[in-house]
Amino acid sequence: MNLTQKILRKHLVEGELVKGQEIAIKIDQTLTQDSTGTMAYLELEALGVDKVKTELSVAYVDHNMLQEGFENADDHKYIQTVAAKHGIYFSRPGNGICHQVHLERFGKPGKTLLGSDSHTPTGGGIGMLAIGAGGLDVALAMAGEPYRLVMPEVINVRLTGKLKPWVSSKDIILELLRRLTVKGGVGKVFEYTGDGVATLSVPERATITNMGAELGATTSIFPSDFRTYEFLKAQKREDDFEALLPDDDAEYDGVIEINLDELEPMVALPHSPDNVIKVKDAGKLKVDQVAIGSCTNSSYMDMMKVAAILKGGLIAEGVSLVISPGSRQVLNMLAKNGALSDMISAGARILETACGPCIGMGQAPATNAISLRTFNRNFYGRCGTKSAKVYLVSPEVAAASALAGYLIDPRELGEEIKIQMPSEFFVNDNMIIKPPVNADEFDVVRGPNIKPFPINTPLADIEKTVLIKVGDDITTDHIMPSNAKLLPLRSNIPELSKHCFETIDPDFSKRALENGGGIIVGGNNYGQGSSREHAALAPLQLGVKAVIAKSFARIHKANLINSGILPLTFVSEDDYDKIDEGDVLKIEGAVNQVKSKGKIVVKNVTKGYEFEVDLDVSDRNREILIEGGLINYVRKKDKV
Amino acid sequence: MNLTQKILRKHLVEGELVKGQEIAIKIDQTLTQDSTGTMAYLELEALGVDKVKTELSVAYVDHNMLQEGFENADDHKYIQTVAAKHGIYFSRPGNGICHQVHLERFGKPGKTLLGSDSHTPTGGGIGMLAIGAGGLDVALAMAGEPYRLVMPEVINVRLTGKLKPWVSSKDIILELLRRLTVKGGVGKVFEYTGDGVATLSVPERATITNMGAELGATTSIFPSDFRTYEFLKAQKREDDFEALLPDDDAEYDGVIEINLDELEPMVALPHSPDNVIKVKDAGKLKVDQVAIGSCTNSSYMDMMKVAAILKGGLIAEGVSLVISPGSRQVLNMLAKNGALSDMISAGARILETACGPCIGMGQAPATNAISLRTFNRNFYGRCGTKSAKVYLVSPEVAAASALAGYLIDPRELGEEIKIQMPSEFFVNDNMIIKPPVNADEFDVVRGPNIKPFPINTPLADIEKTVLIKVGDDITTDHIMPSNAKLLPLRSNIPELSKHCFETIDPDFSKRALENGGGIIVGGNNYGQGSSREHAALAPLQLGVKAVIAKSFARIHKANLINSGILPLTFVSEDDYDKIDEGDVLKIEGAVNQVKSKGKIVVKNVTKGYEFEVDLDVSDRNREILIEGGLINYVRKKDKV
Repeated sequence: MNLTQKILRKHLVEGELVKGQEIAIKIDQTLTQDSTGTMAYLELEALGVDKVKTELSVAYVDHNMLQEGFENADDHKYIQTVAAKHGIYFSRPGNGICHQVHLERFGKPGKTLLGSDSHTPTGGGIGMLAIGAGGLDVALAMAGEPYRLVMPEVINVRLTGKLKPWVSSKDIILELLRRLTVKGGVGKVFEYTGDGVATLSVPERATITNMGAELGATTSIFPSDFRTYEFLKAQKREDDFEALLPDDDAEYDGVIEINLDELEPMVALPHSPDNVIKVKDAGKLKVDQVAIGSCTNSSYMDMMKVAAILKGGLIAEGVSLVISPGSRQVLNMLAKNGALSDMISAGARILETACGPCIGMGQAPATNAISLRTFNRNFYGRCGTKSAKVYLVSPEVAAASALAGYLIDPRELGEEIKIQMPSEFFVNDNMIIKPPVNADEFDVVRGPNIKPFPINTPLADIEKTVLIKVGDDITTDHIMPSNAKLLPLRSNIPELSKHCFETIDPDFSKRALENGGGIIVGGNNYGQGSSREHAALAPLQLGVKAVIAKSFARIHKANLINSGILPLTFVSEDDYDKIDEGDVLKIEGAVNQVKSKGKIVVKNVTKGYEFEVDLDVSDRNREILIEGGLINYVRKKDKV
Repeated sequence: MNLTQKILRKHLVEGELVKGQEIAIKIDQTLTQDSTGTMAYLELEALGVDKVKTELSVAYVDHNMLQEGFENADDHKYIQTVAAKHGIYFSRPGNGICHQVHLERFGKPGKTLLGSDSHTPTGGGIGMLAIGAGGLDVALAMAGEPYRLVMPEVINVRLTGKLKPWVSSKDIILELLRRLTVKGGVGKVFEYTGDGVATLSVPERATITNMGAELGATTSIFPSDFRTYEFLKAQKREDDFEALLPDDDAEYDGVIEINLDELEPMVALPHSPDNVIKVKDAGKLKVDQVAIGSCTNSSYMDMMKVAAILKGGLIAEGVSLVISPGSRQVLNMLAKNGALSDMISAGARILETACGPCIGMGQAPATNAISLRTFNRNFYGRCGTKSAKVYLVSPEVAAASALAGYLIDPRELGEEIKIQMPSEFFVNDNMIIKPPVNADEFDVVRGPNIKPFPINTPLADIEKTVLIKVGDDITTDHIMPSNAKLLPLRSNIPELSKHCFETIDPDFSKRALENGGGIIVGGNNYGQGSSREHAALAPLQLGVKAVIAKSFARIHKANLINSGILPLTFVSEDDYDKIDEGDVLKIEGAVNQVKSKGKIVVKNVTKGYEFEVDLDVSDRNREILIEGGLINYVRKKDKV
C-alpha cells in the first residue's frame, strides 16, 4: 500500500478505497482561517453542535489583518468567542499564517486534517493527509461527521538526486506545474518518494505540498521520516512523531519522475501558476515590487536565506521590497538572531506575520508594475492592481532580484548560501488560547456585519437565463474576488454577492437580480483556486440554480453541491459553443432527472434545441441537491 | 528677546515682529508626506520651478502604506520621481514617519522648517521653528518664496521640577491641553523654559511640541542645549548643533507654569484631545485595543520603555496590541537589541514604521470598542470605526493597560523603568535617496489617479445657499475625512470631494453640486486639526465660495485663502444663531467690499435681513482672494 492508502484505510468510515468511488473518512483535526472561518462557525452554530468532536480544531486569524473598518475586528472577536464556546483552540491575530503555525505547533504525521483553506495540503509536508474544503464541510467535520470525497488517484512523484545551489523546493513544484498545468492534479493525490525526499526538510516539503493546490490536486503528501523527526524535535514535539512510509511494493496510479539535479530556478509568468519557464529564459525584466512570504515560502529557513542574500546590500532604487514572515515563531527568531535587522538594513519593509499581499490584503503594486512574489497564485487582479503583472518565484530569486532591480537567476550571486535547520525553534504558544473549561460562561460576540448565511430552497424545475458564459480555468478569484475591499464582507453574503464576478463582469450581480437568478456556463476546471465557499454562496444568494461547465475543480464542486446548486458537465463540449449569454435554459422534471442518475436533458428555450449534461456526483450528493443543499439535508436527516 | 523672536528675526524678510502684524520669513527646510505631498508637488510643478531653493527639502512617504489599490504605489512613484527632478531628498516607504526621521536625521536648531503636515512642530523639540502649512504654502517655500504668517503671541511655558516615575512627557502636553483646550493655542507660539527643560531628552520634548498642534498653536519650541547636543551627537550630527537660548531678560506675551513634580498619568477621553483627566480618575475601563506609535510617541526611548514593560508578560486575552515604531532607525535598533523580540513575545503585533492606525490607515477597532492610543488625536470616526471610543495616553499607560486588559495607572506596576538615551543611534541613511546630479534625465511618473488640482475663479458677487451649518471645533477630519478608503484619493480632488463632510452629513457633496456650490457656516475654531489643504480644495471643487464662522484654525484659514474661499467671521455671534441651512446669502459688490478692508455686509435673502462679517486678513491675502486663490495670484504677479 502507498502512504495515502494507509492513512485513508485507518480513517475509513464508509466506502472502499477504489478509485472514483465515494469514501467517507474520519477527520482528526480541523483548521479555519478568518476569511472562511466566520462562515464555517456560523454553520457550526446552525448545526446545533455544542463541542467539537475532533481531536483538535484550531481557529486562526491571518487574512483580514489590515482592519480598515470595524468588520475585521468584529470577525476576530466572533471567532475568538465562538471558538471558546465550542472547544476550539484560537490562534490570536499576529500569531501567524494558519498553515505555517499548524505545521510548527499542531501537525502530526498520519493524521487527517480538514481545513477551510485551499492550501491546507501544506500539512502534507509533515506526513498528514491534509485536505482543503468549504466551510460547511469543515463545520460538519467539527461536528464529528466523516468527510466525503471521491477516492482519488494516487500519483507517485519520484524525486531523485539533490537540488543544486540556488535551486529551491519552490522550483520543484513550479516544474510540476509546468508539466501538468493547473488542471493536472484534479482528482489526484501526489505522493512524494525517492531518494531526493531525504534531501528536503519539512518546511521545504511543505512548500511543495502547499502549492500542490495549484495543480488542482486533492492533496499532496511526503513520508514521515528522520527529517520529520528532526523538525518535530526542534519544535519540542518529538512525541508527536510517527514514522510513516509507503510499503516497498506500493502501487500507484501513475508515476512522475523529477531529477532534482537537473532543476534550475523557475518563474511562473502572469497570470497563471502553470505558466512556468526558467528564470534564465525570462529575459531582462525590470522589477517594481518584490513580496516575500505567504503560506508557501515564509518558513524560518526561507526567511534566513532571504536575510543572508540581503545582508549588507541595498534594494534597488525602483523596488519596494515587503517581507511577511510566516509566523510569530519565525518573526521572533529573526528578531532574536539579527536576521531581521539585516533585512531592515537592506531596505525591506517588514509586514505582519499574515497572508498579506498574497490575498490582495495590501501592497497592491503601482499601475503596470512588475511584481515578483514568492506566493502560490498570480491570478489576474488578485494583487489588487489589474494592470500589474505578478511573477511567482522562489525566495532566492526574489531576494536576489530585489537587490538587482530586475529578475535575475540567483546563481549569478556566486557561492551558495547554506542555512541549517535549527536544532531548536523558539517555542512560545502564549498567543494560542486553549479552549476554556468553563466554555458555557462565554458569550459569542456578533458584530453588526455578521449576517446569517443564505440557504437554498429544495430543487424544483429550472427555467433560467444564462447570466454569464466564461472560458477555461476560471478561478474562485474571478467568481468571488478576494481583496482588501471585499474580504471584510466575508461574513455578510448579501453585501458580498454584489461583487460576484466583478473583476470580469461588473454588471453580473445586477443582471442576476434582474433575471431572478439564473445559470452560469463555464469551461474546463471551473472554480479552481481557493476553498472559499463564498464562490458558491454568492451565486446562491443571487439565485443561481445551476452551473454547466466542461469540468469542475474539486472543492468548488463540493461547495456548489453543499449550496444546492447543480454542478453539471457537458456531455458534448460542442454544446458549450452553442450556448450564448442570455439564452434561457430549462430543466424539466429536475428532481426526477437528478434521482435517475442518467444524463440530464437541458432545453435551450431561446434557440430551440435540447442537449445532455452529466451530473457526476454520489447518491448522497443527489439527495443533498434535491433538498437544496447540505444544511437542509442535515437538518432533515437529524429530524428523521 | 525670546527664542522665537531670535529665530524669526534672523529669518525676517518682510514686516515687523509685532504681535498681530503679518510677517514674511525665509524658510530653510521643507518636508512633505505622501498624503499631502502629491498635491504640494503638483503645485510646485504648476509654479514652474525647476529646482527647490531651500537649504533642504525632504519628501517622505509614511501615510498611505497599506496600498489597497494602485493609487498609493503610484503616488509614491510620482513623489520619488518629482523629488529627483526638483532637487528634493526622498525618504523611501519603510524609512519611517516624517517627523521622527526629520528629527533624527535632518532637524537643526535655529532653522525654520515648513511642512505640509500639522505635526511639523515636532521639530521644535530640537530647537527649530517648525510650522505646519498647506501644500501650496510649502510649494511656494520650496520655490524660494518667504512664508507669511501673522506674528503670533509668544507664551512662555515654564517647566519646573522633574517628572515622577511612570509620568511621561505626554502627560505634560495632556495637562496643557486640559488647561487650555484645543482652542487655547490659536495665534500663539509656546516656548518652553525653566529648570524642568533640562530633565527632558529631545524625543520627550518632541512629544510635547508635536502635540502642541492640538492646542491650535502656530508652533512650540524648546531651547537647544546640552540635551540637544547629546541627541545630535548620538545621531552622529554634532556638527549640526548650535546652542540657542532665550535671553535672560526675554519678554513673553504670557506665562504658564507647570510643576513636573505634581503631574500624574493623564488620559484624553473621547472625542477630543483636550478632554483630559487623570488616569486614576477614569474608573475601570475594559480595553479592547491598544495602539502604540505615531509621530507623537514612537521614538527609540518610547519603544524601549514599552518593551521593558511588556517583557516577560502577555497581553490580556481581550486585547489586540499593535506597535508601530517611528522610524527604520528605531525598528532596526529594537531588532538588534532584543527589545522587538520582547514585544513580540508578549503578543504585540508589529506594524510598519508609519503613521498607521493614527490616520485610520488600518487597525480600525471592533464595534463599540475601547481603544487606548499613544497618538495625538482622538477625533470622532478618525480610527475608522464610528462606534469606537479612542483614549489618548502615554506609552507607559498604554503598555501597562495592554497587559492588564483595562486602563490602569502604570504606577501600579511598582518600580520605575529607566531607559537611557543611547550614546549612539544606529545610523543608516540608505533609504534616503539624495537628489541626483542628473536630475534632468529623470521623467516624472504620473499614475492615472493623479489629477490636476482645482483652481478657483476670480472673486465675484456671491449669492449662494448655506449648504451646512456646523458647531464648534469642527476638525479637518469632519470636513475632509482621512481614512484608509479615502487617503488613496488624496491626489484626485474631483473624486475625493464626493466624500466631503461625509462623516457628519453624507449628502453634503450631492447637495453642493445640486446647488451649484454654496456657503458653509461654522462655529468657533472651524478647521482645527490637520494641515490638509484637501479640506479647502474639496469645498473649492464643490463650488463653495465662503465659510462664515465664529473663528478659524490657523492653517485651515490659510488654506481657504489659498483656495480663494472667503474666510469670514461673524461680527455678532447672534447672527450665527439666526442662519439656517438652506438660507440663501448674498454678498453684493464682493470685490469692492474685500478691497475696502471694512466690515462686509451679507444679506440673508431667504429671511430678509442683513448682517456684518469680518474678513480678518492681510492686504496681500485680500489680493489673493480677489484673484481667486494663491495660484492665480502668483501666476498674475509673475506676469507683471
